[in-house]
Amino acid sequence: MRIIDLIIKKKRGEVLSREEINFFIDGYVSGDIPDYQISSLLMAIYFQGMNKQETTDLTMAMVDSGDKVDLSAIKGIKVDKHSTGGVADTATLIVGPLVAAAGGLVAKMSGRGLGHTGGTLDKLESIPGLNISQSMERFAEIVNTCGVSVIGQTGNLVPADKKLYALRDVTGTVDNVSLIAGSIMSKKLASGSDKIVLDVKMGSGAFMKDVHGAVELARMMVDIGTLAGKETIALVTDMNQPLGNAVGNALEAIEAIEILAGKHEGDLKVVSCLLASKMLVLGGIFPTEEKAMAKINQVIENGEALKRFGQMIEMQDGDSEVVNNTDLLPSAEKIIEIKAEADGFIQAMNTEDMGMVALLLGAGRTKKTDIVDPAVGYWLKKRIGDSVKKGDILADFYVNDEKNLDESIELFKKSIIIGNNPGKKINLIYDTIS
Amino acid sequence: MRIIDLIIKKKRGEVLSREEINFFIDGYVSGDIPDYQISSLLMAIYFQGMNKQETTDLTMAMVDSGDKVDLSAIKGIKVDKHSTGGVADTATLIVGPLVAAAGGLVAKMSGRGLGHTGGTLDKLESIPGLNISQSMERFAEIVNTCGVSVIGQTGNLVPADKKLYALRDVTGTVDNVSLIAGSIMSKKLASGSDKIVLDVKMGSGAFMKDVHGAVELARMMVDIGTLAGKETIALVTDMNQPLGNAVGNALEAIEAIEILAGKHEGDLKVVSCLLASKMLVLGGIFPTEEKAMAKINQVIENGEALKRFGQMIEMQDGDSEVVNNTDLLPSAEKIIEIKAEADGFIQAMNTEDMGMVALLLGAGRTKKTDIVDPAVGYWLKKRIGDSVKKGDILADFYVNDEKNLDESIELFKKSIIIGNNPGKKINLIYDTIS
Repeated sequence: MRIIDLIIKKKRGEVLSREEINFFIDGYVSGDIPDYQISSLLMAIYFQGMNKQETTDLTMAMVDSGDKVDLSAIKGIKVDKHSTGGVADTATLIVGPLVAAAGGLVAKMSGRGLGHTGGTLDKLESIPGLNISQSMERFAEIVNTCGVSVIGQTGNLVPADKKLYALRDVTGTVDNVSLIAGSIMSKKLASGSDKIVLDVKMGSGAFMKDVHGAVELARMMVDIGTLAGKETIALVTDMNQPLGNAVGNALEAIEAIEILAGKHEGDLKVVSCLLASKMLVLGGIFPTEEKAMAKINQVIENGEALKRFGQMIEMQDGDSEVVNNTDLLPSAEKIIEIKAEADGFIQAMNTEDMGMVALLLGAGRTKKTDIVDPAVGYWLKKRIGDSVKKGDILADFYVNDEKNLDESIELFKKSIIIGNNPGKKINLIYDTIS
Repeated sequence: MRIIDLIIKKKRGEVLSREEINFFIDGYVSGDIPDYQISSLLMAIYFQGMNKQETTDLTMAMVDSGDKVDLSAIKGIKVDKHSTGGVADTATLIVGPLVAAAGGLVAKMSGRGLGHTGGTLDKLESIPGLNISQSMERFAEIVNTCGVSVIGQTGNLVPADKKLYALRDVTGTVDNVSLIAGSIMSKKLASGSDKIVLDVKMGSGAFMKDVHGAVELARMMVDIGTLAGKETIALVTDMNQPLGNAVGNALEAIEAIEILAGKHEGDLKVVSCLLASKMLVLGGIFPTEEKAMAKINQVIENGEALKRFGQMIEMQDGDSEVVNNTDLLPSAEKIIEIKAEADGFIQAMNTEDMGMVALLLGAGRTKKTDIVDPAVGYWLKKRIGDSVKKGDILADFYVNDEKNLDESIELFKKSIIIGNNPGKKINLIYDTIS
């Protein structure tokens, strides 16, 4: 088999066989096939696409390129949850305790990655003392005890994805549905859970800017999971504005705690509860989403969900008192009110730029070695469709380093479109694919 | 400027500016931009194409990547001729002396390259003593004296093409009209002639298998030449069968000599005379092709064309007596007659495979270090449309090394399709683009 023949085959729009896909992934990871042939193949894949079977074969070849997590020490059906990413998406911190309190199991490993705002691990690490590096034995013990644990990835999971992603990033081949689906699903399938619930984001703050693309990606990932023998369902949800109100690591932890405590409503809570209910049904804990949702409401009201979060924090060496007193979380030196400059309605937001605002304040990282400031970010006071009067507070900025403050305020104001009418109403949930 | 932005721009089907094209060619040649980004860009170019201006900018950027030949020591309008390649295309050996004898100037530099059969330089080198390595001073002196010289390329011409072609060859990005046109025209523009006549081949023995593609390539090259300020015209001619009857280096030299001597007719002569007449008009020697053609016929009849060839051979240190006695050229040990196995008509030929037959006999090279046997090859006795009877000689094989003889005979017989009717008539000249 020669890689040049596979490049030409894909260039012509033909279908690659499992053997051919294994050949190219194995050869690339081993170093036998050079970057310049793989980048050419990736660009051909971008233009010609891959069908469901090819994408599944690609995903499995990537899974097989490295270690696989063994979660058999955790007794019961483990349901993983994954979001394709966006701004103020703190759902994991809420969903984990909800599912655990309602009787399910969440044994989640997160990657670190880059982002405008921190990832789940950064949000957790804003909690004093919390350690996301746990041994596999301790991880199993935590989940077996309190039903939920979220830790950093260990082992050499999916090296093919690391190498391919690094190449895609510099060769303009990131935005292909099969390559995105393969990248996400290979990591999900390697990390040992039994079933998977996906939250595919769509909108100005998501990778997928339209419903069509998001549904296509969701369907591809559900198909891969199914073909790989792991039941998978996907929600397609909105990312045309930040999902929660808090943007920034400790702020997002606070919002998660407030939701678990029953003190805060909004889109983030709605999406988190829906994801939790799907996970509970998939995990066999409840026969219907209605029954699962009733239980979820109960564990919020009776404080069980918040207690589970505290328990997980404590077992991961953190200060569990934060669930009762969020003042224990890092706080910024200054709070600056950002006010509306005109009357009108919030018509739209450039959510990607709103993520960039948090990055400018120090909440995210552009390279792996950047240090995240857990305290900084902003708390959004208005959402799309809200009416505003000149002088109304749009957001509170939590600031330590003022270096990029002016730039961040300017970008924030530019990102929020205020018009004379309420604008187009946007959905929160677009589709469910199972 | 970042190469990743150029990749994404071209991937989206946008037009690259001259500055952007210079950036990518300069960066690639200098080693600042790695192979894996260029191969990705090349694949994007394959799918999205390049317009006339982009292709010209690419060509000029490649020309500027290395040395340029200065032919100013040769007084008069130098017209270059280039064929995109095929089997039994000995036109250069005929066209050069014809144009010179009719009053024009041909100062041609050939590259070596790989091929089923040898290139122009190999055909010339089959003439005892002939030296294709001449200094630029001597080259000018030869052209100034006898009107024609063909030598090997000197200097570091178009290093960008060498590097790009090597990458295209292993990344499935050879077959794009802009990349092909840029590769050919950059070498033509760097090698110093004032005007260019192109012979774009079409058919089973050519890179372009259909008229549409060949015309597109021809038009693109004519446009590049024109935009670069060098008048260029192109013929699109047939390569559905070997152009001449001789396939192999000394055999092709013999056929060229016989045509120049007026002793041999056929497609090769027709195409060569047409090319020569175009070159003479382009060079300003004759106002019309009719007048040029009359002169061409005259210089064949009166022996002037053959004499010029002998003069060039002598000035390049070769045995000019070969033009009067082709027995002085290398001859093979054995001549084997290949006979038809059935009655019928020659309907079609797989010309690419017929080139491979000559390669198997030792007439060509698959890697640069291969040594070509000048004596071997075959002389085709039938052409498409001819009727054959079982036992008729299809070709005489000229053989030294019998190692691949059986394989070559088998491939030859498979390459000639004999049917019950004469089949579709094929054209010799498809189009002229100016």
